[in-house]
Amino acid sequence: MIDFNDPVFTIYAVAALLGVLKVMGQGWMTVRAMMAEGAGYVSPEDLRPGAINASPDPSQLEPNARVERSRRMHRNDLENIPAFWVAGLLFVLTGPPVWAAVLLLLGFVAARAGHAWAYGTAQSHETRATFYSVGSLIVILLAVWALIATLL
Amino acid sequence: MIDFNDPVFTIYAVAALLGVLKVMGQGWMTVRAMMAEGAGYVSPEDLRPGAINASPDPSQLEPNARVERSRRMHRNDLENIPAFWVAGLLFVLTGPPVWAAVLLLLGFVAARAGHAWAYGTAQSHETRATFYSVGSLIVILLAVWALIATLL
Amino acid sequence: MIDFNDPVFTIYAVAALLGVLKVMGQGWMTVRAMMAEGAGYVSPEDLRPGAINASPDPSQLEPNARVERSRRMHRNDLENIPAFWVAGLLFVLTGPPVWAAVLLLLGFVAARAGHAWAYGTAQSHETRATFYSVGSLIVILLAVWALIATLL
Repeated sequence: MIDFNDPVFTIYAVAALLGVLKVMGQGWMTVRAMMAEGAGYVSPEDLRPGAINASPDPSQLEPNARVERSRRMHRNDLENIPAFWVAGLLFVLTGPPVWAAVLLLLGFVAARAGHAWAYGTAQSHETRATFYSVGSLIVILLAVWALIATLL
Repeated sequence: MIDFNDPVFTIYAVAALLGVLKVMGQGWMTVRAMMAEGAGYVSPEDLRPGAINASPDPSQLEPNARVERSRRMHRNDLENIPAFWVAGLLFVLTGPPVWAAVLLLLGFVAARAGHAWAYGTAQSHETRATFYSVGSLIVILLAVWALIATLL
Repeated sequence: MIDFNDPVFTIYAVAALLGVLKVMGQGWMTVRAMMAEGAGYVSPEDLRPGAINASPDPSQLEPNARVERSRRMHRNDLENIPAFWVAGLLFVLTGPPVWAAVLLLLGFVAARAGHAWAYGTAQSHETRATFYSVGSLIVILLAVWALIATLL
């Protein structure tokens, strides 16, 4: 139930809020990469001189490897974390056992933390794909669980 | 109300969970397209030899038509389905009649299924735009309905 | 609590629904830009002659400044508004005072309205970044507030 006295809901809330902080934090990682590189801008008006950009140069609108990496991490978050928010909530509303909530909800957080580490530090495709797969399969499992519980 | 004994909430849960499965499934369609084409990768480290990529080639980082199509479908999902999740939930909480929930919530699922078919099989822009428009207008209608019910 | 008689929940519902209308409306701004410019298409099949495109030309698949601006605005929405939906809901469930809900939830709406104005009219990077920062910091604050309330 939606009640902070229910341990399952509390676990969901913590996992969902950590996901919020990850998504928002990735936006700031992109900002930080753009400031550090002085590059990776995407809007023509960002070449006007100002506090953010004292000495504009047209090359600043070209893709920058570090900034693009942060954007890809952000896009991957958006492909996975919002679906987790709704699947996780509906899963919790079906009244699952605490062990399943701990395993699946905190397992998703751990898998996405691993994905962020693997992507941010350019680990191998295999390593990144493994963390992606675990996180994605957990969301699918949450959704199938909730769908079955809803229809039964 | 948020209660699986309420048929309106159950319809919402089914529609929302089908949306979750669509979003997550599209990620796997992109993976499948990348594996089948051996192309469409986006990160430099994906050119390191490994289980996923035995014989790397720089051309694998160029856009691949099939992979890009799946990514566009995914982006379109993210532009529509998360907004449906929250608009649908708030709509359901206003206590709508069952016929309206069936029509709008399952209508959205049907429109997005049509959009996926039209986009995945490269039907005409007109066909794809029709399914997009129906889905988008349903989400707007759900939001306006809930907004009016909230403010009254 | 999730109850339209609770003023805090009502404020959340209004803010979340305005966010839904913004996200969906941005999709229609992209459609409008594509129709007005007759350009900015992204799928090869959009070059088939039809009601939307009477006289196709390969240049229509190249990026168009006005259409790309709308797409960037949409992407920025998706990086911020879905996280607001879930952080705002969990914040509301912790039973915050009405003044905090008004300030943070309606503050987010105001910040995103400012961001849309700044981005849509190509104001300086500094102006746009200020609105982005206020909106993003509010979502982070909502999440931290809810996380602390959950764990206490």
